[in-house]
Amino acid sequence: MTASRAWDAPWRGSSRTMGEVLAERQGAVLHLTLSHPARRNALSLAMWQSLGAALQAASADASLRCVTIRGAAGHFAAGADIEEFPQVRASLQAVRRYHEDIIAPALDAIATCTHPTVALIEGVCVGGGLEIAAHCDVRLSCASARLGVPINRLGFPMAPDELSGLLALAGRALTLELLLEGRLLDAAEAYAKGLVARVVPEDTFAAEAALLVARIEAGAPLAARLNKALVRRLSAQVDPLGPAERAWAFSYADSRDHAEGVRAFLEHREPRFDGS
Amino acid sequence: MTASRAWDAPWRGSSRTMGEVLAERQGAVLHLTLSHPARRNALSLAMWQSLGAALQAASADASLRCVTIRGAAGHFAAGADIEEFPQVRASLQAVRRYHEDIIAPALDAIATCTHPTVALIEGVCVGGGLEIAAHCDVRLSCASARLGVPINRLGFPMAPDELSGLLALAGRALTLELLLEGRLLDAAEAYAKGLVARVVPEDTFAAEAALLVARIEAGAPLAARLNKALVRRLSAQVDPLGPAERAWAFSYADSRDHAEGVRAFLEHREPRFDGS
Amino acid sequence: MTASRAWDAPWRGSSRTMGEVLAERQGAVLHLTLSHPARRNALSLAMWQSLGAALQAASADASLRCVTIRGAAGHFAAGADIEEFPQVRASLQAVRRYHEDIIAPALDAIATCTHPTVALIEGVCVGGGLEIAAHCDVRLSCASARLGVPINRLGFPMAPDELSGLLALAGRALTLELLLEGRLLDAAEAYAKGLVARVVPEDTFAAEAALLVARIEAGAPLAARLNKALVRRLSAQVDPLGPAERAWAFSYADSRDHAEGVRAFLEHREPRFDGS
Repeated sequence: MTASRAWDAPWRGSSRTMGEVLAERQGAVLHLTLSHPARRNALSLAMWQSLGAALQAASADASLRCVTIRGAAGHFAAGADIEEFPQVRASLQAVRRYHEDIIAPALDAIATCTHPTVALIEGVCVGGGLEIAAHCDVRLSCASARLGVPINRLGFPMAPDELSGLLALAGRALTLELLLEGRLLDAAEAYAKGLVARVVPEDTFAAEAALLVARIEAGAPLAARLNKALVRRLSAQVDPLGPAERAWAFSYADSRDHAEGVRAFLEHREPRFDGS
Repeated sequence: MTASRAWDAPWRGSSRTMGEVLAERQGAVLHLTLSHPARRNALSLAMWQSLGAALQAASADASLRCVTIRGAAGHFAAGADIEEFPQVRASLQAVRRYHEDIIAPALDAIATCTHPTVALIEGVCVGGGLEIAAHCDVRLSCASARLGVPINRLGFPMAPDELSGLLALAGRALTLELLLEGRLLDAAEAYAKGLVARVVPEDTFAAEAALLVARIEAGAPLAARLNKALVRRLSAQVDPLGPAERAWAFSYADSRDHAEGVRAFLEHREPRFDGS
Repeated sequence: MTASRAWDAPWRGSSRTMGEVLAERQGAVLHLTLSHPARRNALSLAMWQSLGAALQAASADASLRCVTIRGAAGHFAAGADIEEFPQVRASLQAVRRYHEDIIAPALDAIATCTHPTVALIEGVCVGGGLEIAAHCDVRLSCASARLGVPINRLGFPMAPDELSGLLALAGRALTLELLLEGRLLDAAEAYAKGLVARVVPEDTFAAEAALLVARIEAGAPLAARLNKALVRRLSAQVDPLGPAERAWAFSYADSRDHAEGVRAFLEHREPRFDGS
């Protein structure tokens, strides 16, 4: 599977091997599906780029009223596609490019989407999957969902542009709980902690999702857009990170433990961290 | 009913037709009641002004220790009195006057009240009703309560000075859920999502409200006032909107869909929004 | 008990009378125990100083991976040791020294600790106890816990450096509810309101605490430290208080009601506040 990847254009793989983002329009609603079924929709670089491009195109289409994001085959997304890391995220420079030039713009395209965005969460929704869901406006969860950010086992912290969206949704205490423990929450705990708007059983999930979208569609589009933009404008402010702070946020990239965490994952073994 | 209103002084109506805010003092506690029973206490311009004036007077009265706000006849408040809109909110200029000169000062008078403020919520608490409750310090909910902001069906977004108070209570995710879906939450869901401090059954609601007020009264007034002021001062900051941003926040006022939303409400029919 | 205290060095008392902070290291984890069992671990000035010093030493020890804080004998901490107040907190100047020079640095040492910090909460966790827990990264609660800030009965507000940490955890609405009512929350309500990450029964509390710490230990230390520091950096900002604002925040110290609240507590009687 990795043999088909070309180093000089790692995200140009075929949809069969690299995963893809499927788009289907129904009336005024755009349905996006994260699809990488063999890997529980683990997010390849190609998928991040497709997702960002799809959201940007949606924002420019004034005839839309709602965008949904879900995953294929019973899972939302299992986080980053770690199998790709040796190719696309193997040096400090590549780490920053991956997070700052690929993931950050995709999440920003979700957060700034003109239209209301809805994450429809089934099964695994972890790491980058939870980041995508966190940047949507409303999250509907199936009872099957498990949410979390187990990247402490991979030896790296959440990148700042990804963290800010999780913080805006989860607040400081829950964000630290998720990041420091790396534990997955089931749907009920995720609801109790405010990560999702509602939890519905599997057999009514599709119907509840349709009702949610219908309620959004029934509202005035201009009101929805202004509400979204005003909420962003009136949310608590944080000074943007400066260049030195960004360098600090990625200072782990050349560490032994970061390499060990990724290698252990790829070798299906427990990582051995020594703090260096 | 609208025949009695004069355009040049729309809030000078009689209390029978325009609604009123009743005030009753018991010891060191001021009890305010939103009363417009024929319209589930829908908030007329006259009521907003009375409410603001009552809170300002309360703040100046150092002998008080607590202010409660409730609604008459089993409801908190059903939001703005839409019947008034053709008279008092029919142009861009009137929309801004209504929100910036009438509602914003009333909510600010609640938020900056010297004394602890308690919202006692029964029945419908939507739109402007929820805004009032959100600006109080503590919210006690009866099991009968239903809370939400269904203004997406009216074709307009929440005004910025109103939105900031809801955001401070509900956070970004719940605020967007309420605004974009327009769904009402029952008391249990409102509690689970942090909109209210407690939910109590109808038959003990009055007794629990009295206990809550008694606990506040038992504390040192000076400590309560400093706690309130310090919490305000130490809450996350947002740059105030500039004039251009305020104009943008109200840019919907002359839109077709805004007119359609209000007209459809008054004609008791579904609105037909086309995004313009 | 008070006879052994010297005015000129009030925190130099013996551990038997003044309480102490016990430290025990197990592998890469430092376990701190607030111990003042005769007073449900009420926090003496000596204990605040020991706690701060322990956290600062822990931060400097790169071989640690986690710090836990608990209380001795079934309680976390019953707040400040009010018995000390006549000696250590009897004038405006002493009040500011107590809060700004003793408590604030101790809480800051927790909040800025290099390593993940876990509060293990049993029994009473009020006032200063809740402040300590709020400044930790993760809070595990035993079903026996009761949490709150009943200082309104003592006639003084929460000091600003203490309040900011509670606000960061609890948000504006819950902070005001706790401060204005002074009511204690049981573990279930504290969980529902986001004050603690989980509630576990007494008989599994120790085992769950060990699992929580093990999950933290299993992660890469560098990732944990960067996650902590980034969450701090990216949390909503507030302008620091200026000197005049600090003076205002402590302006209650010479009030009649403040003296009355402390005196009534020491005399085991209800306080009589008159607002002056």
